[in-house]
Amino acid sequence: MKASAQKEDLSIPRTMKAWVLEGPEQLRLIEKPVPEPGPAEVLVRVGAVAICGTDVEIITKGLPAWIEGGLPFNKNFTPGHEYMGTVVKVGVGVDEYGMGDRVAVEIHAGCGRCERCRMGMYTSCLNYGLNYGEKNKGHRANGFTTDGGFGEYAINHVNTLVHVPDEMSDEEATLIVTAGTAMYGLDVLGGLIAGESLVVTGPGPIGLMSVAVGKALGAQPVILTGTRDARLNLGTRLGADYVINVQREDPVEAVKRITRGKGVHYVMECSGAPNAMNEAMEMVNRGGRICLAAFPGEPVQVDLAKLVRNNIYVFGIRGEGRSATHRAAALMAQKRFEAKLIHTHTFKLEELPTAFRYFRERIEDAIKVVVKVH
Amino acid sequence: MKASAQKEDLSIPRTMKAWVLEGPEQLRLIEKPVPEPGPAEVLVRVGAVAICGTDVEIITKGLPAWIEGGLPFNKNFTPGHEYMGTVVKVGVGVDEYGMGDRVAVEIHAGCGRCERCRMGMYTSCLNYGLNYGEKNKGHRANGFTTDGGFGEYAINHVNTLVHVPDEMSDEEATLIVTAGTAMYGLDVLGGLIAGESLVVTGPGPIGLMSVAVGKALGAQPVILTGTRDARLNLGTRLGADYVINVQREDPVEAVKRITRGKGVHYVMECSGAPNAMNEAMEMVNRGGRICLAAFPGEPVQVDLAKLVRNNIYVFGIRGEGRSATHRAAALMAQKRFEAKLIHTHTFKLEELPTAFRYFRERIEDAIKVVVKVH
Amino acid sequence: MKASAQKEDLSIPRTMKAWVLEGPEQLRLIEKPVPEPGPAEVLVRVGAVAICGTDVEIITKGLPAWIEGGLPFNKNFTPGHEYMGTVVKVGVGVDEYGMGDRVAVEIHAGCGRCERCRMGMYTSCLNYGLNYGEKNKGHRANGFTTDGGFGEYAINHVNTLVHVPDEMSDEEATLIVTAGTAMYGLDVLGGLIAGESLVVTGPGPIGLMSVAVGKALGAQPVILTGTRDARLNLGTRLGADYVINVQREDPVEAVKRITRGKGVHYVMECSGAPNAMNEAMEMVNRGGRICLAAFPGEPVQVDLAKLVRNNIYVFGIRGEGRSATHRAAALMAQKRFEAKLIHTHTFKLEELPTAFRYFRERIEDAIKVVVKVH
Amino acid sequence: MKASAQKEDLSIPRTMKAWVLEGPEQLRLIEKPVPEPGPAEVLVRVGAVAICGTDVEIITKGLPAWIEGGLPFNKNFTPGHEYMGTVVKVGVGVDEYGMGDRVAVEIHAGCGRCERCRMGMYTSCLNYGLNYGEKNKGHRANGFTTDGGFGEYAINHVNTLVHVPDEMSDEEATLIVTAGTAMYGLDVLGGLIAGESLVVTGPGPIGLMSVAVGKALGAQPVILTGTRDARLNLGTRLGADYVINVQREDPVEAVKRITRGKGVHYVMECSGAPNAMNEAMEMVNRGGRICLAAFPGEPVQVDLAKLVRNNIYVFGIRGEGRSATHRAAALMAQKRFEAKLIHTHTFKLEELPTAFRYFRERIEDAIKVVVKVH
Repeated sequence: MKASAQKEDLSIPRTMKAWVLEGPEQLRLIEKPVPEPGPAEVLVRVGAVAICGTDVEIITKGLPAWIEGGLPFNKNFTPGHEYMGTVVKVGVGVDEYGMGDRVAVEIHAGCGRCERCRMGMYTSCLNYGLNYGEKNKGHRANGFTTDGGFGEYAINHVNTLVHVPDEMSDEEATLIVTAGTAMYGLDVLGGLIAGESLVVTGPGPIGLMSVAVGKALGAQPVILTGTRDARLNLGTRLGADYVINVQREDPVEAVKRITRGKGVHYVMECSGAPNAMNEAMEMVNRGGRICLAAFPGEPVQVDLAKLVRNNIYVFGIRGEGRSATHRAAALMAQKRFEAKLIHTHTFKLEELPTAFRYFRERIEDAIKVVVKVH
Repeated sequence: MKASAQKEDLSIPRTMKAWVLEGPEQLRLIEKPVPEPGPAEVLVRVGAVAICGTDVEIITKGLPAWIEGGLPFNKNFTPGHEYMGTVVKVGVGVDEYGMGDRVAVEIHAGCGRCERCRMGMYTSCLNYGLNYGEKNKGHRANGFTTDGGFGEYAINHVNTLVHVPDEMSDEEATLIVTAGTAMYGLDVLGGLIAGESLVVTGPGPIGLMSVAVGKALGAQPVILTGTRDARLNLGTRLGADYVINVQREDPVEAVKRITRGKGVHYVMECSGAPNAMNEAMEMVNRGGRICLAAFPGEPVQVDLAKLVRNNIYVFGIRGEGRSATHRAAALMAQKRFEAKLIHTHTFKLEELPTAFRYFRERIEDAIKVVVKVH
Repeated sequence: MKASAQKEDLSIPRTMKAWVLEGPEQLRLIEKPVPEPGPAEVLVRVGAVAICGTDVEIITKGLPAWIEGGLPFNKNFTPGHEYMGTVVKVGVGVDEYGMGDRVAVEIHAGCGRCERCRMGMYTSCLNYGLNYGEKNKGHRANGFTTDGGFGEYAINHVNTLVHVPDEMSDEEATLIVTAGTAMYGLDVLGGLIAGESLVVTGPGPIGLMSVAVGKALGAQPVILTGTRDARLNLGTRLGADYVINVQREDPVEAVKRITRGKGVHYVMECSGAPNAMNEAMEMVNRGGRICLAAFPGEPVQVDLAKLVRNNIYVFGIRGEGRSATHRAAALMAQKRFEAKLIHTHTFKLEELPTAFRYFRERIEDAIKVVVKVH
Repeated sequence: MKASAQKEDLSIPRTMKAWVLEGPEQLRLIEKPVPEPGPAEVLVRVGAVAICGTDVEIITKGLPAWIEGGLPFNKNFTPGHEYMGTVVKVGVGVDEYGMGDRVAVEIHAGCGRCERCRMGMYTSCLNYGLNYGEKNKGHRANGFTTDGGFGEYAINHVNTLVHVPDEMSDEEATLIVTAGTAMYGLDVLGGLIAGESLVVTGPGPIGLMSVAVGKALGAQPVILTGTRDARLNLGTRLGADYVINVQREDPVEAVKRITRGKGVHYVMECSGAPNAMNEAMEMVNRGGRICLAAFPGEPVQVDLAKLVRNNIYVFGIRGEGRSATHRAAALMAQKRFEAKLIHTHTFKLEELPTAFRYFRERIEDAIKVVVKVH
């Protein structure tokens, strides 16, 4: 809460505790220098940080091979990208955020100079990963290519920040970026979804937030598919009009039944299941649109003929572009849905390995596991 | 030519010669009544009709299974959808086209009343195929769900017509709809392609027209891939800056080489090759876009992770929506490219089976085989 | 309510009572034949009809001069375009709506064949007004160019209908088209307005619905300007975060104050005040957008330099295109705002002149005056 | 030509000659230090610079009042924004352009961090003019808020550069930014203009380039209006299908005549004439679009009712956003039109006052007056 935050000591120590990734599955809590914000940057005193599936990938496989110049295990890298906190220092020229402001983060700050960034497509930055040395183009992906939030302090470019209202808890604020990804997915699907039909496949955090944001914007009906009733019930509480347990009913048939054979306008694919793409193509009607926010680990069989014959468009998204995080935060600030329903567990910074275990093994049905840092 | 057309006898006989599809591979030339145009329709005296790959599909498999209520072999159906001719009779309320006007056709007239048509997406009409009896919603797909151009006369809704200038030959005019499909593909890719890089995969008629239209709109470079040098050479004449024979060079590597490792903005996939989608995803850069105008006959392995990680969008298109045919015809009327280069053979209406054989077996390197009707 | 509607006698008489416009200000209640629905049309037994400012224009000036071929006072024309009712007969090929369905209307059914309609821009139909005789292109504007709802029955093209849920009263359902216009205005402004700032100028019915729809979609802040506190208070109840009485405060200064000097993203101009456009240009920031849903009766001074220097876009809208009425109806069905707050008075069909008097003279602060027909 | 450029001495002196604006109409040629490129910047040795109408405004009125914090006559400011030259030094992290590269410029480098820049709308940067001291947000408008090209060297952010091909003369290359503005205008009008009808009002440099770019993209017909036959003839050479001398014919009537009463799809307003907006609204058909690239010096009477009744959209543009300059340069590199036709006079750097006099007084029918610096 801001009230208490303001009472907190905002003085900045010289060093801080932070987890670093030393090798596959090798996280170590060390003491390292608190970094200095440059121009257009701020220093954030981390309040809380949530664990995301991508964190698990990074911890097991190192920084993704698809990041050019990615240094898988650089010994000093601090992951964590779903965090929030308080601004405790600002760089030159920063007045967008001030001392003591509560902020949540989004991941990508584009270089601002490649073709994609100039068109506003900063999550498709062509200088991805280039934030170092002579090739420094200014791109940052918090917790991917630059140090993230599993530590006491983190640097953020102002483009990756969003204000957090006083009434919102630290834990809930860590979910803003997840809601932002859901919002962005709905944006690329067209954005005008009041009264349009939407299937969300996969009740993970992004799927559940897609249900919530979709319903907040008036989609009707919102249909959620998944394998576990507990998650589906959560979907209902977040706004799903129908839930389908794919272990009990064929999801394509169920969607056809609910829509009286017509199919839906939009599918947000958040499961990464091998057959999800084929099912999505069966769920949408002619001219329908599919957003892929998840993907299977291996290549899968896809019947591309359906895309062509039915004029279907497919949009891959990585993360949360076009300031969607700000729009999602606005809905959350207006209490349009209860994002905090998906927050299930809280641990201390020192307990990060336990937090990961809860998340990975879904202990006690864990969904969003949050580490409270300050 | 219009000059001669005007001298022609525009009186309309009671019956006409037309090919009908009586069963798989069973085309028969019969005498059947000349149809009457209804409101918003005209009667076209067919001048010429080109053969399309889809015609072969229809003739071998019947009307596509994906057309609801499709009657595969209804004994009286006349296929043929790439035709042109002269307006010889107009229905009630028609003043968009007049007697003696030379016209070429596009395929789809939407119902005008479903959700998609109301948004201008008439090729995604949700009442596809419903043009008969009590379920008549007014949808027409010339030569697919209604009688087409392998006969002396054909009915057309005014929405499926485009004016043909005097200077354009009948044969060239049959190619307008092919150029329209290419134009539509470039539209869905974003349309603003001057100075943007474009790969076209597959030098069939749509691929070659994609090269021509893309270059006419200023795309740079335009790269064409294929297996046959003769086709690739034609691509060069139509505007390709680079051609890649995939039998001699890996197309992904070639594209990377030509673009100095950057990849391209857009891929128009016109080959239907099993690995074309995967290659396209490797050819485009982050945020790139792929239009699928062709597809493999069977489901294929696709690495969906690339779509998500690289924010790639994929657009399936069937045919030539959003009045793209009109824009393509305008470029052809302005002689921006030599569409007629892809017209290789001409036959008479009676010779349709021979024409199909030339097309299917690519005899004498046949590309566009045209049947001259009048 | 549907319950009662179902009990109603849906048998159709041969003649009906309907008001016709015989000359300026000359409305007369006559008996005229109940019309027959053609293909794609239904006959609606009118339940209720609201009065709109445009009705007043029509009644005083005749059908607008800007309608080609408009017959200002054709003696037999029945105005009224904000109505709802029950389907009592369907034309050939209609299964989108069935007997007994409760429906509300939107105004425009495009011809479906002009350039604009083919692109989905049916409110910009180039065959506006052509629904008669040899020039019949099928365009309809209910209550403008074809008979409307100030009578017992009315014909509607299926494209102008939207389903009304059982729980919604007849009176509230007449407001769907007004909410649809507001929704369409927000669509053309970009549609993605969650968390974006919006000024609505003018608290008439469209202005108030713009506040409601804008807030339902998450706009923040929503600022309403006007001259009467009662209306502004209603705006607050419908979702305005700030209201500005322009008689007490300069609206541009107030907007700057509220937005800390930044200005807003969007202005919906619903007042028609002579200086509204200039003020809107001062209210929006660089790159801002203005939708004009109202206009002054005379040409006014506009400082066009501001549009150019600040990259401002201005969108004129007439009515409710792109199926926005459906999306607005969906929000109302989900009870996202209380549209009925703007319904103030109800009269019987016979009392139409009194209803108009209340509306025009704003007797008892009348906003939406509804005539209950059945 | 590059050939000679390569032979040139690229060593950089400590000081350079540059014109500075000391007060209204007070340009003085001084010796000042050659600036140093920062990160993401290069130093350009100016080859040639063209005079633009905005330069005249700046020289007479100082930096525009609409630039926040604008310092009208800061004694040391060097104007000039339509220049080209050779890269002679690169800042940290620059590999987009290399030593010896020939480049032309566009004007705006957005801050990259405001709401507009993040969406790709860098010409609407909300931090316009903030490139100095503590408020440095990194925005640059070459020759407006930062030193421009009326000197021997100039600093450019890489975002404001475009490559110039060897075959293009220095003089022609100064016109790229003008063509870029025309291209951007066509972009905001929708971009898909092949076969669509376009009126360009005003045959100044932007108007003439709008004709050229519009025709290159296939617009048909392209109609140019103006008052002087010499300019109109130039329009014909650049691609206009029709020209209208408004001194001899009412332009609205002429457009109606040419389009058989239908009006056009698009108007590019490049004249700034007081009645141009009203005429544009009469020229476009329902749903038509108008781009304002020029404006009258004073507020003018506008009949806003037409915007609303006819669903017209109006787009104000300042300059050349969304990388349109790159697309325009690509068309010029492909020799799609002869931009150099509008270049009429050349002077030396020392002769800048004479060059301005030729431009302002249109001596010898001057259109684009170029100052050759190196």
